[in-house]
Amino acid sequence: MRYKLTLAYRGTNYFGWQRQMAVPGFRGQMPAEGEGLPTIQEVTSRAFGHVLGHPVEIVGASRTDARVHAKGQVAHLDTHRREIPIEGLMAAVNHRLPSDVLVRRIQRVDDDFHAIRSTTSKRYQYFIWNSLQRPLFFYDLAWHRWQLLDIAAMRQAAALLVGEHDFASFARAGHGRRTTVRTLLDCSVSRRGGCVVVGVEGTGFLWNMVRIIVGTLVLVGRGRRTPAEVGQMLAAADRRVAGPTAPPHGLFLQWVKSRDIDPGETP
Amino acid sequence: MRYKLTLAYRGTNYFGWQRQMAVPGFRGQMPAEGEGLPTIQEVTSRAFGHVLGHPVEIVGASRTDARVHAKGQVAHLDTHRREIPIEGLMAAVNHRLPSDVLVRRIQRVDDDFHAIRSTTSKRYQYFIWNSLQRPLFFYDLAWHRWQLLDIAAMRQAAALLVGEHDFASFARAGHGRRTTVRTLLDCSVSRRGGCVVVGVEGTGFLWNMVRIIVGTLVLVGRGRRTPAEVGQMLAAADRRVAGPTAPPHGLFLQWVKSRDIDPGETP
Repeated sequence: MRYKLTLAYRGTNYFGWQRQMAVPGFRGQMPAEGEGLPTIQEVTSRAFGHVLGHPVEIVGASRTDARVHAKGQVAHLDTHRREIPIEGLMAAVNHRLPSDVLVRRIQRVDDDFHAIRSTTSKRYQYFIWNSLQRPLFFYDLAWHRWQLLDIAAMRQAAALLVGEHDFASFARAGHGRRTTVRTLLDCSVSRRGGCVVVGVEGTGFLWNMVRIIVGTLVLVGRGRRTPAEVGQMLAAADRRVAGPTAPPHGLFLQWVKSRDIDPGETP
Repeated sequence: MRYKLTLAYRGTNYFGWQRQMAVPGFRGQMPAEGEGLPTIQEVTSRAFGHVLGHPVEIVGASRTDARVHAKGQVAHLDTHRREIPIEGLMAAVNHRLPSDVLVRRIQRVDDDFHAIRSTTSKRYQYFIWNSLQRPLFFYDLAWHRWQLLDIAAMRQAAALLVGEHDFASFARAGHGRRTTVRTLLDCSVSRRGGCVVVGVEGTGFLWNMVRIIVGTLVLVGRGRRTPAEVGQMLAAADRRVAGPTAPPHGLFLQWVKSRDIDPGETP
């Protein structure tokens, strides 16, 4: 029996979703950040394993990096246990999980469902704390940029990224993917309180793609690059021409949409 | 030269404002929570000492306990340095402070100003996460009570506490104070998003007084006690009759009002 999980977590004290990036062909250095910390996959698998009474291997839709957070990660697991009511399972697992990881939903799905292969689109949010003083209660949840950002210019640049493009300029070297062509469905920039929030929605992403997009949009917001130059960066298909990679701690996996295969037992 | 400081901090990783509670006559156990952690006073004194170039002893208005937060702690320090511009001092100190402590304001004050003795009133806020699922991004900033709280009943009980009363029922044993009579100027209960926020304002507080008030109001909110019973608890002047002490991590020192002695150089 396969279950679909919706998970939320604060990534601050984790190595990321999983220890091995499992990027075929990548021989480079693994990210040093978060070395020695547990992974979200480990603590979640352990909690479900304890409650279900057998080892559990949880597969996640997005391999979020160290320090990256999630409001709606999607994952799946298999169990032969049939008698456990979903509400009770969720309460028991949440009771065992550390306070910075939470299961928000458990749904019975068909065996054809797969957290990675059934994903049709994902949305990430990036929070920029745009104020003179650094964030205090949100210091690990937003990137501090004190320079007042020009939202209108950032929006112009963001609009150029929407659609199907070769995002080679916006991918970390060693991504190991056959093609760097991806489709962005949305790239929005808005103010929310003292924050500037960048929302990026797409059918698939390259390694560090959202963080490089944000690093580049911030250059535009500071007037260091024009929106037109972002168009040229995209056309160049060369990582060296785009902006810096924004730090991980402002990034949230907001949601994952998937072809849900509902066996009619979803709560 | 004396400076008045306004400080904010996330108390999660601190022993509290200071290591010794310095309660005259108290021979009981010191709180075990946060043992081995630094104090806010230590890290703040060290940062100012480094920037000013001489040892600094910072005096705080409220001795917040381990895990308790502050949005507006008030403190003072003395220095013989005259040439440092306040904006530069603040930027340099904030640069040196850890990410969970922030100086919000520095003001030149007369030598008569004293963080404790000049205080006329203080306000605390207590955040209760009142939702079935526990908080995730705010797990160390709010107390989770999943039972839907009856705000109207809590408000009735809170109103009985406002005014001058003997708060002996709402003080932790070993407070070592001559009198347990205190004056509450306000005790409000409101919903804010998924939270219930209790605001308590007074001219002075006993040890754990706000947390015992909150623990008692939550009993009322759950229907376990009536507002009238809270009036009886107050009259009994006996700690054993009041509710439990709410945990420290939901508590914020919101602001401190003081008789400001302005030498005309305040920025």
